[in-house]
Amino acid sequence: MAPSHPVYGRIDGPIVMIGFGSIGKGTWPLIERHFDYDADKFTVIDPDPEVGHFLRQHKLNHRQVALTPENYREVLTELFAEGRGFCVNLSVDTSSLEIMKLCRELGVLYIDTVAEPWKGFYFETADNPSRTNYRLRQAIRDEKARSPGGTTAVSCCGANPGMVSWFVKDALLTLARDTGRGETAPADRPGWAGLMRDLGVQGVHIAERDTQARARPRPRGSFVNTWSVEGFIAEGFQPAELGWGTHEPWFPEIGHRHEEGCQASIWLDRPGAITRVHSWCPTPGPQFGYLVTHNEAISISDYYTVGQGAEPEYRPTCHYAYHPCDDAVLSLHEMFGAGVQQQSHHILSEDEIVEGIDELGVLLYGHEKNALWYGSRLSNAEARDLAPYQNATGLQVTSAVLAGMVWALENPQAGIVETDEMDHARCLEVQKPYLGPVEAHYTDWTPLKDRWAHFPEDIDESEPWAFRNVLAT
Amino acid sequence: MAPSHPVYGRIDGPIVMIGFGSIGKGTWPLIERHFDYDADKFTVIDPDPEVGHFLRQHKLNHRQVALTPENYREVLTELFAEGRGFCVNLSVDTSSLEIMKLCRELGVLYIDTVAEPWKGFYFETADNPSRTNYRLRQAIRDEKARSPGGTTAVSCCGANPGMVSWFVKDALLTLARDTGRGETAPADRPGWAGLMRDLGVQGVHIAERDTQARARPRPRGSFVNTWSVEGFIAEGFQPAELGWGTHEPWFPEIGHRHEEGCQASIWLDRPGAITRVHSWCPTPGPQFGYLVTHNEAISISDYYTVGQGAEPEYRPTCHYAYHPCDDAVLSLHEMFGAGVQQQSHHILSEDEIVEGIDELGVLLYGHEKNALWYGSRLSNAEARDLAPYQNATGLQVTSAVLAGMVWALENPQAGIVETDEMDHARCLEVQKPYLGPVEAHYTDWTPLKDRWAHFPEDIDESEPWAFRNVLAT
Ligand SMILES: NC(=O)c1ccc[n+]([C@@H]2O[C@H](COP(=O)([O-])OP(=O)(O)OC[C@H]3O[C@@H](n4cnc5c(N)ncnc54)[C@H](O)[C@@H]3O)[C@@H](O)[C@H]2O)c1
Ligand SMILES: NC(=O)c1ccc[n+]([C@@H]2O[C@H](COP(=O)([O-])OP(=O)(O)OC[C@H]3O[C@@H](n4cnc5c(N)ncnc54)[C@H](O)[C@@H]3O)[C@@H](O)[C@H]2O)c1
Repeated sequence: MAPSHPVYGRIDGPIVMIGFGSIGKGTWPLIERHFDYDADKFTVIDPDPEVGHFLRQHKLNHRQVALTPENYREVLTELFAEGRGFCVNLSVDTSSLEIMKLCRELGVLYIDTVAEPWKGFYFETADNPSRTNYRLRQAIRDEKARSPGGTTAVSCCGANPGMVSWFVKDALLTLARDTGRGETAPADRPGWAGLMRDLGVQGVHIAERDTQARARPRPRGSFVNTWSVEGFIAEGFQPAELGWGTHEPWFPEIGHRHEEGCQASIWLDRPGAITRVHSWCPTPGPQFGYLVTHNEAISISDYYTVGQGAEPEYRPTCHYAYHPCDDAVLSLHEMFGAGVQQQSHHILSEDEIVEGIDELGVLLYGHEKNALWYGSRLSNAEARDLAPYQNATGLQVTSAVLAGMVWALENPQAGIVETDEMDHARCLEVQKPYLGPVEAHYTDWTPLKDRWAHFPEDIDESEPWAFRNVLAT
Repeated sequence: MAPSHPVYGRIDGPIVMIGFGSIGKGTWPLIERHFDYDADKFTVIDPDPEVGHFLRQHKLNHRQVALTPENYREVLTELFAEGRGFCVNLSVDTSSLEIMKLCRELGVLYIDTVAEPWKGFYFETADNPSRTNYRLRQAIRDEKARSPGGTTAVSCCGANPGMVSWFVKDALLTLARDTGRGETAPADRPGWAGLMRDLGVQGVHIAERDTQARARPRPRGSFVNTWSVEGFIAEGFQPAELGWGTHEPWFPEIGHRHEEGCQASIWLDRPGAITRVHSWCPTPGPQFGYLVTHNEAISISDYYTVGQGAEPEYRPTCHYAYHPCDDAVLSLHEMFGAGVQQQSHHILSEDEIVEGIDELGVLLYGHEKNALWYGSRLSNAEARDLAPYQNATGLQVTSAVLAGMVWALENPQAGIVETDEMDHARCLEVQKPYLGPVEAHYTDWTPLKDRWAHFPEDIDESEPWAFRNVLAT
């Protein structure tokens, strides 16, 4: 008997999916499964002729065009002529902010998985502060402030950014319970920030280990990853960024603060994908991750701030500590060694992967139980059983999009929101069937453990979880 | 028809091979093929019971014992009771210096592939200068000075250290020819050093790219390499070292000089296996290599010095720039990330490797033709055709041992020698049939090419080949 899937509601009007790459292709079957909508009104916008083939076979409408600052209004206004529907933006090289604004103008629900800029942003300017995710996010926060409420637009609702913000809340409640503080969820942002502070959490790693692999050597000259290669290279070459906590006793020499906006994060004058940090995941234990910039590093530090500005009363450090799949580790090594990007890009498909999981969670550290990892340990094998057209990495993202869409349908006038601001319990209720084992793991590991015995390192023995210790030498 | 192999001479008396790991096992068939000796008098010393199985099947004598400072005199004196023969030291954790001294005392020819110390040296002291290869080599140079001439003992005669020193000479003659200086080989060390200086060579990378791979993902918790894992980890955790050239306009902050000995090299307060440098090989073009300490970095800089001491008239920079096989790159990433060594070690066998070559050469740079790579590009497939029980990496090493043994037999009273001091033409004549394509490649690449456009780097635009530019940020 085929499993029955809950239908979460009806989407009236057109559904327009922008971008049909690894995430778009995996999101489509979840939309099909979980929403009631007119199949005729589902359209994909993607300039890539390759995707046209799949779309034709599945009778999906295709507008084969690249959205640009010049054409996006026209293209989208035409598709959303009814003034309702849902815009699901899963592309690269399109401005999340501009498209979100237009959708809200038109009364169309909107969701994306990243605060993406128009093509050119990542590489064409030499001015590093203006290439940060801080700037991209702040522009959206400013728009929210300028134009509160109105049609719901969900910003950055993938696995991370996205799902991990819901995990932070589940992890805080787990920690509260396990330290005898009960399990009542705070009612609002100040409540959550106060809870994190009261629990003594100094910071959060978005701690990920992707062990998915295929049974063939990585070809030279090819960047291999488990999701968008273009997306990963772009963010990998942005400056490393992290939310900067109030417990940090030291400031990195190559670190820079921001003068405007929420001031929750700092950036380093170094590409994230070459900046290694010490972190921890259940499968490998201690491991290197890359300090790649991500929206959630800023949003989580911002959301859990008590006080405000550059010197608040309390703020957690927060950053990504990403160990991508081994083929991507090798691809980075090759790319930085060659000084040029590989011409060939490849996303490992669920069919060629022979082993591995995407272990993606949040590591809350510095509290009385030292550190708690909370997250999804979804294997590719299980992902294949759960939904078509995606590996484990993909399903963690697409199921977050699904959850975000459900929440938006249920809260259609919530204005611009980040995932920190959404009902994490409802979202995880929708998403969890797709996440494989979601587990909490305590560890006594700290970044002071297992340092090299024979060489001087720039560490602070008095503050085990200081970022100075986390940053690899 | 089976290929006929030249027999280079007769070894009278016992042949004792110390260590029967990946290199010992591959050297044995070459000895069998190319020397006349009494099979009964061939003995392997190795404590590993695993190797006993193979040795029994091939009717090779086995002394299953680990040589130690306490027992080595007794064990070897007994085996070499006749006072002649050949000691082939291919082990880890035995003192090359002590064993070499004993062999010379006994009138026994000696060869090794590394200036190895007794067990404990690499990790038991916290004093970094005393853990350097500089110290290990200097002790052998001091012994040579103390006790000149006598029975030949060849020090460090593998692929590198070893063969690459012969490649430097071939490369110099190639460069001399290609720049219109004729091709007459200098007659002595001062002649060679003068030639290198006159050609304007600023330095030499031992530039290696190993692309050998198998068709299965590297298992977590296992250090995988194409030769001794133990040897690689040991040298990888020694301080990075390099011969320090007279053209260097800058001195690294973490660099240290030596007060005693030849003073040709410096060491860095950082493990070599985590220290990346920009280098170049024919297959990948520009790539990262690891600045792992090696005897040849010191010996080559020393050999080609004009003048002496800390401030000579001319000296080339020289260091290893090693891109091991991809599985080893991942193993290093795992090891340094975990802060502990993997418990499981694996050397890729020639049978499981499905593709790849070991491209090992010398990159002579800074001269009027910019840079010349000269080396062996041996594939595993070809290695399998040429000799049993070894991959491409192994064959480059074992054939150097063969060449060194031939040279020692032909020059039995040459005293203690390094490969720089041997007849490179004769040695390569013996070795080349096992090296696959040996090629010269010019390149216009310099470490200033293809730097990141978006981030400040500590580079010296005026001196392209300065080590400051070579050292990766
Ligand atoms: N938050 C998360 O957890 C998360 C995870 C993975 C991916 N993402 C993001 O999701 C997006 C899609 O990821 P993916 O793995 O599917 O990427 P992908 O590279 O596989 O696909 C991107 C698609 O966008 C299309 N595209 C390019 N330019 C376009 C334009 N101007 N207009 C419309 N379409 C355009 C491409 O043709 C391609 O099909 C990326 O922005 C990525 O960063 C977020
Ligand atoms: N110069 C070069 O190019 C080059 C290249 C590869 C290896 N090497 C060196 O050659 C040596 C052997 O390399 P490998 O790949 O065969 O290593 P391996 O680890 O495969 O084998 C080493 C062998 O030494 C034996 N051994 C350990 N302790 C011993 C002791 N106390 N007495 C006697 N035997 C002992 C081990 O049991 C093992 O069989 C290493 O020292 C390595 O660094 C040099």
